[in-house]
Amino acid sequence: MRLPKHIGIIPDGNRRWAKGQGMDKSEGYVHGISPGMSLYRMCRELGIGEMSFYGFTADNTKRPSVQRQAFTRACVAAVEELAKEDASLLVLGNTKSPMFPQELLPFTARHDFGKGGMKINFLVNYSWEWDLGYKDGAIGPGLKTSEVSRIDLIIRWGGRRRLSGFLPVQSVYSDFYVVDDYWPDFRREHVEDALKWYAAQDITLGG
Amino acid sequence: MRLPKHIGIIPDGNRRWAKGQGMDKSEGYVHGISPGMSLYRMCRELGIGEMSFYGFTADNTKRPSVQRQAFTRACVAAVEELAKEDASLLVLGNTKSPMFPQELLPFTARHDFGKGGMKINFLVNYSWEWDLGYKDGAIGPGLKTSEVSRIDLIIRWGGRRRLSGFLPVQSVYSDFYVVDDYWPDFRREHVEDALKWYAAQDITLGG
Repeated sequence: MRLPKHIGIIPDGNRRWAKGQGMDKSEGYVHGISPGMSLYRMCRELGIGEMSFYGFTADNTKRPSVQRQAFTRACVAAVEELAKEDASLLVLGNTKSPMFPQELLPFTARHDFGKGGMKINFLVNYSWEWDLGYKDGAIGPGLKTSEVSRIDLIIRWGGRRRLSGFLPVQSVYSDFYVVDDYWPDFRREHVEDALKWYAAQDITLGG
Repeated sequence: MRLPKHIGIIPDGNRRWAKGQGMDKSEGYVHGISPGMSLYRMCRELGIGEMSFYGFTADNTKRPSVQRQAFTRACVAAVEELAKEDASLLVLGNTKSPMFPQELLPFTARHDFGKGGMKINFLVNYSWEWDLGYKDGAIGPGLKTSEVSRIDLIIRWGGRRRLSGFLPVQSVYSDFYVVDDYWPDFRREHVEDALKWYAAQDITLGG
């Protein structure tokens, strides 16, 4: 089966999942860590070369502070968990804002952990405006994420059919697969189905 | 019903449609003009404020020349048809390439035709690299399409679930609706269904 070289992950639906469980919205995020580790291990076993995780965005930080703190903690925990595995890990986002967690500063240069291997790009306090240096129609001079490669397949959990500002340049040719289940309800079959679907797509790169 | 202010249109599937009709692939494009006019009239009646049509891209011009000539002719005809209606019309794309049809040069500044009204952005010999001035991770200094506003809803015909380089900056928050039918098989219900679906989406702009 033809596999994507680089998979983008939009792990949406944590708050709606928490609500459905009778929890406070903010309590959903911690339940997204274990799905992320399962997904990482699954992709590592498949030999996927690169993954980009949508942690949180500068837009997200405008939410109530109890939520902001909860998703920030979950992202810090996820990056620390990944650093115990085999991975070539890089955290990308606007570090010049107080919303960027200081604990993750050491990860903003790429390091190999364990035996290295799969490239993982973890977006933290990311925004497309920051990435493109966008303001009033002016952009540049550089793409902040220029070392993140083109994404072949984006999988979004939680049913929404949009990119929500996720890596616009790397996503120009991506095939986009939506899982209706919420991210904390992650199952291996979601990814298996996405990969089967991807293998059946033609790859034209716009041609 | 909450309507999108700006709709993006990716009219894909002309070649597959032609094949299915026993025609040469290149013969599909001319059958995409009338659907475009129907769609334009439908959106004008609904009071949609702005539409962006994906005409053809610089990537597309690498196809066999009989196809290239056919989609170029279809785009020229479509723009000339639209100029007979009420519209505020602008053609955007790389005019410095021989692939840009000279007939459309007069349309590369926005003009009101008829009573003006709906803004129509028609992409011709467009590419996201041209738009962003992208080369080797450097971008800018300006977005070439800076006068095209944020897109609320993108409708793509032909079943593919990807943007294929369509206006990456304006598409960052767009809701993305896919019609499985090919573009020459356009029906009003496609758009009605897309609009109903869009009205049921929450609008967060990444928040």
